[in-house]
Amino acid sequence: MQMTPAVGAAEAAAAAISILDRIRATAPRIHCITNSVAQAFTANVLLAVGAVPSMTLAREEIADFVATASALVVNLGTLDAARRDAIAAALDAARAARIPWVLDPVFVDRVPGRLAFAGQLLAAQPSVVRLNASEFSALTATAVSPGAAASAASSRKIVFAVSGAVDVVTDGARVANIANGHSFMARVTAMGCAESAVLAACLAVEPDRWRAAVAAHVLFGVAGECAAEQARGPGSFPVAIIDALHGLDADNLKTRARVTP
Amino acid sequence: MQMTPAVGAAEAAAAAISILDRIRATAPRIHCITNSVAQAFTANVLLAVGAVPSMTLAREEIADFVATASALVVNLGTLDAARRDAIAAALDAARAARIPWVLDPVFVDRVPGRLAFAGQLLAAQPSVVRLNASEFSALTATAVSPGAAASAASSRKIVFAVSGAVDVVTDGARVANIANGHSFMARVTAMGCAESAVLAACLAVEPDRWRAAVAAHVLFGVAGECAAEQARGPGSFPVAIIDALHGLDADNLKTRARVTP
Amino acid sequence: MQMTPAVGAAEAAAAAISILDRIRATAPRIHCITNSVAQAFTANVLLAVGAVPSMTLAREEIADFVATASALVVNLGTLDAARRDAIAAALDAARAARIPWVLDPVFVDRVPGRLAFAGQLLAAQPSVVRLNASEFSALTATAVSPGAAASAASSRKIVFAVSGAVDVVTDGARVANIANGHSFMARVTAMGCAESAVLAACLAVEPDRWRAAVAAHVLFGVAGECAAEQARGPGSFPVAIIDALHGLDADNLKTRARVTP
Repeated sequence: MQMTPAVGAAEAAAAAISILDRIRATAPRIHCITNSVAQAFTANVLLAVGAVPSMTLAREEIADFVATASALVVNLGTLDAARRDAIAAALDAARAARIPWVLDPVFVDRVPGRLAFAGQLLAAQPSVVRLNASEFSALTATAVSPGAAASAASSRKIVFAVSGAVDVVTDGARVANIANGHSFMARVTAMGCAESAVLAACLAVEPDRWRAAVAAHVLFGVAGECAAEQARGPGSFPVAIIDALHGLDADNLKTRARVTP
Repeated sequence: MQMTPAVGAAEAAAAAISILDRIRATAPRIHCITNSVAQAFTANVLLAVGAVPSMTLAREEIADFVATASALVVNLGTLDAARRDAIAAALDAARAARIPWVLDPVFVDRVPGRLAFAGQLLAAQPSVVRLNASEFSALTATAVSPGAAASAASSRKIVFAVSGAVDVVTDGARVANIANGHSFMARVTAMGCAESAVLAACLAVEPDRWRAAVAAHVLFGVAGECAAEQARGPGSFPVAIIDALHGLDADNLKTRARVTP
Repeated sequence: MQMTPAVGAAEAAAAAISILDRIRATAPRIHCITNSVAQAFTANVLLAVGAVPSMTLAREEIADFVATASALVVNLGTLDAARRDAIAAALDAARAARIPWVLDPVFVDRVPGRLAFAGQLLAAQPSVVRLNASEFSALTATAVSPGAAASAASSRKIVFAVSGAVDVVTDGARVANIANGHSFMARVTAMGCAESAVLAACLAVEPDRWRAAVAAHVLFGVAGECAAEQARGPGSFPVAIIDALHGLDADNLKTRARVTP
């Protein structure tokens, strides 16, 4: 399998800065179908990068909200009947409006019914799937590795972003390994959910889906490192990462981005 | 149109202190029908000013909760079928118990169905409507200005509080312009929703609705300024504004209140 | 009534350390049926002590989540129809899987319908009931006192944990009075709800239910005291208590635990 063109840290940092600048300049609205635990933190993370959140799940309203949004997040946490209905209506509206969407298949490794539903969503061609290694294994029925992710991406024409100590982002042809982040990110709820929302904000301003996904992981991972320097623990960490996302600039992105092909 | 009696900064600060003292002394319970994103922050803001929040939406329970509350907030964020039902039951209970209520018509400028529903609620005579300029324009079909707000208030016998860089609060006869606040307030979710809840707490202890609404904007705006001096960004700002609301006293209200007729 | 064996501060601190170590070592997953206001804070509190939260309420999924969890929390805040259904399904699954569960009958003193429902849950034999004095009085129809709590526990074979300035934890035969904590804990939403979740995490690793409940109150109360030393007010307090729970060690537990028989 071809793994070129490669991306280096400097190139990835420059792309991330460019994408962040476009988010800040255009304030895209991102509609989020997300779990009840993650809503408030996700909204504040989107505002911190310069985007605007909307979060309604109501059957009567969601199509109108999605039709005028710039991107959509479909997160499967706390997946109840109202959320299943909302997802169906939102995907119809997203398809009609031709806006990108991110699938975040939370906990599909835990519940058979949720895995089956996520499989249907995968067939509906999300722009990017962001998930962890266990969720990747459950969803694709293959053990996680950069090669497995690239194969999954290539066969489905979907960008896969697999989060971990090193994040792997691939569209099949291109692979980036992003080594940014901090261990506190696994000790705070909704971090992955919020990263998916940042990814949607990047997709709203960058047509190259793989480049947008790499940028989101660089932005979020670098902000996590900045936050860890301010935080006393996992309570002050989510506060600090919002401050850090708001304060991100070319200097800390260039200095800190750790991206290898 | 008559715009007197005017209110000055010293008078507004004194009224805000008096109202805050009464909230702290009596701990009124405020029932909030609010969006799922804003619930936790709103509850903590109410506790910080000395009030007690309740938040249930359940059809079986809401009438009992509202009947024994001191004021009600009806916020239209994430307006689903359960919230529509809850609002109907809550307004019946509020009317029977003769408690004041605040309408916060979030995003009525975005969705036609929500605008129509808000129009019905306006006809049910909220004590105060708190909203931003875009929502005001959508709801009243007029461009925002102090005169337009006063006219809307006068014809409907409702106090209008229009938030912005300068907040305008009017009952038709009286207008106050409140220039307190900080730009971070627009970069954090649920700030307006929480301000509506503070307004309801003020209405719970102050029968002059216009005076209560002015006080709420002074209290919240001054707390926002205090918070901005402690905060590193929009992550630490909502934490700091809760600390600041809890710590408000006559000194910082007198020094900071910026209110003109 | 026999009130022995007594427990002292040193013994309680040692038990709390041992239980916390086991939570950190085994990372038990705690399924929480809790109110919409408390979900995010509760999830972060569980992560801070080393446990893993899950929060779905969906009828299609909850049995699968509970069957593989290590303990369950049933909190009656924002008790709507979906939560009532979720509780029924969850209790069936918890009984089949023989996992412990905590009942937190929020606001049963306010609404007759909720009190009746809580009475049914009490008959289903929760491992521990955690509540405040007003809720205890409503639920047991007796005024609160250590003797009344011990009598309620003894007759129902349920551990009662009554929170207050001094917490009382009793299984009927044994009583512990825990004097840790800080006044800010009553000025922040969801503190009791989160303490119930910590209690469930303790039950997941400690078969002696009374000992687990005492440990939870010591851990949470000591963390609250540590947090108050860092916090500027009720905004920074919930941030600081999560940091403090994460940082708890044998030293601060031994120094601070205030437990008397």
